[in-house]
Amino acid sequence: MIGVGIIGYGYWGPNLVRNFSEAAGTRVVAVCDIRAESIAQVAKRYPTIQTTRDFTELLNDPSIDAIAVATPVRSHFELALGALTAGKHVLVEKPMTETVEQAHRLINTADRHNRVLMVDHTFVYTPAIRKIRDLVAAEELGEIYYYDSIRVNLGLFQRDVNVIWDLAVHDFSILEYVLGEHPVAVSANGASPVSQSPESIAYISLFFASGAIAHINVNWLAPVKVRQILIGGSRKMILYNDLEPSEKVKVYDKGVMLTDDPDKIYQLRVGYRAGDMWAPRLANSEGLAVEVKHFVDCINNSLVPETDGSVGMRVVELLEATSQSLRRRGQPIELRG
Amino acid sequence: MIGVGIIGYGYWGPNLVRNFSEAAGTRVVAVCDIRAESIAQVAKRYPTIQTTRDFTELLNDPSIDAIAVATPVRSHFELALGALTAGKHVLVEKPMTETVEQAHRLINTADRHNRVLMVDHTFVYTPAIRKIRDLVAAEELGEIYYYDSIRVNLGLFQRDVNVIWDLAVHDFSILEYVLGEHPVAVSANGASPVSQSPESIAYISLFFASGAIAHINVNWLAPVKVRQILIGGSRKMILYNDLEPSEKVKVYDKGVMLTDDPDKIYQLRVGYRAGDMWAPRLANSEGLAVEVKHFVDCINNSLVPETDGSVGMRVVELLEATSQSLRRRGQPIELRG
Amino acid sequence: MIGVGIIGYGYWGPNLVRNFSEAAGTRVVAVCDIRAESIAQVAKRYPTIQTTRDFTELLNDPSIDAIAVATPVRSHFELALGALTAGKHVLVEKPMTETVEQAHRLINTADRHNRVLMVDHTFVYTPAIRKIRDLVAAEELGEIYYYDSIRVNLGLFQRDVNVIWDLAVHDFSILEYVLGEHPVAVSANGASPVSQSPESIAYISLFFASGAIAHINVNWLAPVKVRQILIGGSRKMILYNDLEPSEKVKVYDKGVMLTDDPDKIYQLRVGYRAGDMWAPRLANSEGLAVEVKHFVDCINNSLVPETDGSVGMRVVELLEATSQSLRRRGQPIELRG
Amino acid sequence: MIGVGIIGYGYWGPNLVRNFSEAAGTRVVAVCDIRAESIAQVAKRYPTIQTTRDFTELLNDPSIDAIAVATPVRSHFELALGALTAGKHVLVEKPMTETVEQAHRLINTADRHNRVLMVDHTFVYTPAIRKIRDLVAAEELGEIYYYDSIRVNLGLFQRDVNVIWDLAVHDFSILEYVLGEHPVAVSANGASPVSQSPESIAYISLFFASGAIAHINVNWLAPVKVRQILIGGSRKMILYNDLEPSEKVKVYDKGVMLTDDPDKIYQLRVGYRAGDMWAPRLANSEGLAVEVKHFVDCINNSLVPETDGSVGMRVVELLEATSQSLRRRGQPIELRG
Repeated sequence: MIGVGIIGYGYWGPNLVRNFSEAAGTRVVAVCDIRAESIAQVAKRYPTIQTTRDFTELLNDPSIDAIAVATPVRSHFELALGALTAGKHVLVEKPMTETVEQAHRLINTADRHNRVLMVDHTFVYTPAIRKIRDLVAAEELGEIYYYDSIRVNLGLFQRDVNVIWDLAVHDFSILEYVLGEHPVAVSANGASPVSQSPESIAYISLFFASGAIAHINVNWLAPVKVRQILIGGSRKMILYNDLEPSEKVKVYDKGVMLTDDPDKIYQLRVGYRAGDMWAPRLANSEGLAVEVKHFVDCINNSLVPETDGSVGMRVVELLEATSQSLRRRGQPIELRG
Repeated sequence: MIGVGIIGYGYWGPNLVRNFSEAAGTRVVAVCDIRAESIAQVAKRYPTIQTTRDFTELLNDPSIDAIAVATPVRSHFELALGALTAGKHVLVEKPMTETVEQAHRLINTADRHNRVLMVDHTFVYTPAIRKIRDLVAAEELGEIYYYDSIRVNLGLFQRDVNVIWDLAVHDFSILEYVLGEHPVAVSANGASPVSQSPESIAYISLFFASGAIAHINVNWLAPVKVRQILIGGSRKMILYNDLEPSEKVKVYDKGVMLTDDPDKIYQLRVGYRAGDMWAPRLANSEGLAVEVKHFVDCINNSLVPETDGSVGMRVVELLEATSQSLRRRGQPIELRG
Repeated sequence: MIGVGIIGYGYWGPNLVRNFSEAAGTRVVAVCDIRAESIAQVAKRYPTIQTTRDFTELLNDPSIDAIAVATPVRSHFELALGALTAGKHVLVEKPMTETVEQAHRLINTADRHNRVLMVDHTFVYTPAIRKIRDLVAAEELGEIYYYDSIRVNLGLFQRDVNVIWDLAVHDFSILEYVLGEHPVAVSANGASPVSQSPESIAYISLFFASGAIAHINVNWLAPVKVRQILIGGSRKMILYNDLEPSEKVKVYDKGVMLTDDPDKIYQLRVGYRAGDMWAPRLANSEGLAVEVKHFVDCINNSLVPETDGSVGMRVVELLEATSQSLRRRGQPIELRG
Repeated sequence: MIGVGIIGYGYWGPNLVRNFSEAAGTRVVAVCDIRAESIAQVAKRYPTIQTTRDFTELLNDPSIDAIAVATPVRSHFELALGALTAGKHVLVEKPMTETVEQAHRLINTADRHNRVLMVDHTFVYTPAIRKIRDLVAAEELGEIYYYDSIRVNLGLFQRDVNVIWDLAVHDFSILEYVLGEHPVAVSANGASPVSQSPESIAYISLFFASGAIAHINVNWLAPVKVRQILIGGSRKMILYNDLEPSEKVKVYDKGVMLTDDPDKIYQLRVGYRAGDMWAPRLANSEGLAVEVKHFVDCINNSLVPETDGSVGMRVVELLEATSQSLRRRGQPIELRG
């Protein structure tokens, strides 16, 4: 039975507490939050879980084997570093850290202490994204042409991170998982129409050595909520709508075919192919439940998580480069790849 | 009764012939196309309309007062110039010309011959776009924050123009009409995954002096057709879905409000405002019918068209600058404004 | 080349003229309508087609081999009878006649004169309905449990027929074609809230010997247009949405499974099966074009049409029985089957 | 502080426990269920709540002032009767009882003991239905023409009640609340295609003295989930889609107008009126939370609940009459009104 401590009981923390409570093989020992009202909420809902406003209590508690960090980004590094140094396994909320440098240090610390360091890229553990990855890996789509994501809604402005760190981070983690290819350059621009707030609108293009392009449209000021990804390949195309209650993933047997008829002077030299559409059945499992189970497996069997520190670091690298391009109105930034 | 000649009977020409046939005050005298099968189609459907493969016949026909040019872009300049020089009024398909230089010469020629030169920016004449323009002009939306368009489908590859000249041109013409403000810079990137074809995917950001941003996502390789524009303002927001049979335009009484509570350290300092949604009734009229009527009014009453040569030229300027940025992977290009 | 005359140029007539004009092997000789403005419209659009307000001219014209009747229902019988008696093949608009008795006489007349008598049940010739029939016939759905249709919109009130004769007739013709089984009883009720108008709302249940049930919801007073049919079977289920531009037909691999666990006292004893969803590609063909081609084939090769007089008569029988039950607030009416 | 006991911890019970736990002024004292595993679940999630498999413990517990009954229908009467007799206030799950006779006895018992008897018609307490009731009450819709509900899904077969008692009961309770008029007759039919199961498909028509008609389509064998109600009036019309995350209620300014032009012989004599569509903002509150608060108010201030025993009894009367008509294939059944 792995003892778990959770730091941060704001938006995401309650989901972690619930999932670690219900998972086989784990027990939530304590929850820490600096806000008295959050602590009171935990105490009311889970009378058997200890609560504290001082995270060092968790570090010093020998019954705690693993710590999940679900605080604002700026405290991820310090808390995760403390936990790893105290010999705890760590699951850290995305984005992993504020800088690549910090991510690097966490990875080294985890290595040195031989602890599991995993980043909470939840989408990677959802049935929809896993199905998409499988289809891409099996080359069902053929050569990947593009990945086009729209992730907009009215809301939640953050005090200190912009819309890229809040929303585009999901697409960066999905891209890492699905494409298995790291981009070579990024161009981004956006706007911050609400005064004294960070960017609430951003448009990001990622370029890949294979010729594929990814584009991400994130916006906190949209009147409707959209969570939609198009993936186009040479053989098939996918439409993934995360707001659909069922049929989240639709696979279209559609594409183009070149023709070489030189007589078609006004006309297209590209033909179209339209076949069936198919929506594979997806398991009903909650991403976070799968992820918690994987975290436990990694601890118990010394495995490398699918979303380990190095994946988390690559996502932070993308966030940094995107922010840099954004400040320069779309100037492309090269990536280490 | 204005005699009309139409050059080009491909994708759009039949719509022009139908609308000029049904309009009050106009008579279609002749249709010209270099393809024998197009000519044959006209002759079968409209036995009373003359047909020819030589456009000079139209220029020399004194019963023809106005000429509509609906050929591929590369011939717009030569045909429109010939028609204006022959003393005809001209309605030219969008985009007006291949270069700003050509657009400039057409405007001068029309001025010199005192003829109407109008560009076929059809969306500007649809009930939906006119309603949106009215709402923006009446400041119902408050300060405009962004214009975000998605215009994708599995679509007609053109031999010699890319997806920007085919699809983004619609958004450029809508922006000119709706915002009444010319952008100051553009950043664009895209991809041409189908070998030996022009760009079939593009992402374009336009920057305005007011701080507003416009973004246009155009794609010929999408498995589904989307025609959707979001416009966000400080007071209200619009969702325009051109594929909705009714309720194409939805106005959301939604927005953000700043709060200055310094205690909310983890929290948002921006509040949300959510009110009613409202879908104004739109007239049932076809954009092209309204446009043809306006063209006739301009000829008969010596008026300046809403989409005259200078509007057409600004759109061509945007196309040129966008193509330039695209070649440089998003490098921002300044515009004359 | 079959010479065709068309009687009635109102809502549907123009579609017949267009399709018979464009079909291989037919030539539209003349159009008849008693309204001067309809005649004028034909003359303007099709200068080579003769027009008349007297339908006997069509009967006497030896260059006319076949007549299509697209007038209000109450004149179908007289016009079709005249045409058959004059030795013409006949395509008559749905519903075939006002009474079963009339339908019977038309069938006999066609037999006696050895002419083709076909009823214009257009949906039967659309790619969507043909695909559904194929799936049902191949027992892909297993045993058919139900057919549930919603066919509502704002409008078009007719002067002398109610919503059943206008809209439910489509479902009756689809049922005849798809199920291959005639109902044994019908129960219907409805309302006529608009004073002095025929019923504009109706709900119809049809019972089949197999145990299947069909239900049809038709309404001229709905604020939105719906054209949706659910078909449930023991193995698969279909959702057919005629307003979808693509993916009109969706096949769900879903169903129920009985379990016999006697311990589940509070619980379900029926389990659920959920598999993939699949939307077969459908041809792009227009139903009426396929139908016109079939009519020509039947004439040229002395074939029995898929929607011949006997099918038309069964649909009229359903209309009569439904109207009878409607007047009795749902009292079930037995059918000859 | 009102002490609350909850009997039945199956599908709905957990929602009651959660809402009574979070409500101001109530405390959940004990939960009773005859299944050991349900009891264990409560004990795990709510360690401070007592659990028992014997409901008489709740009746005898003086710290319990009110009892919520959330068991299968067949035990509602016995449990509610016991609770009322023991002097407890009672909130009973819908449908209130199996027979009108039982409902009558509960009402009398509550009166005699001066206790609150409330039926859990949850929809009545949702923001959407309350908004619709307000619009109808304010005569925004004009005269009500029809209420047309579709409530289908692949769904939970019950051992001993059919789809009417499971799903149509919602519409019966909504109709009672929204229309303020009791139907005068009912006609229903349906099918039970799954062998040895109660009816899983039903179509119900309700007739009102005002001329309005209500129709309810319920189905446990549909491949997709639909929760949609159309309400048509002489002035406006409503579309209520409970599955929409926002804009659940849309109000259409549409309707018909009679014209008296005698010349329109082929044509409609009814004109159409199409205006704006409007989706009022709805509060975010959960129906059950509002309902629990109302129950507490009624207890504390001796008020009559909006969904008291007499409303519950009228719904049971509709269920009984509907079942009777169903057995007779649509034979209309008169109601006491």
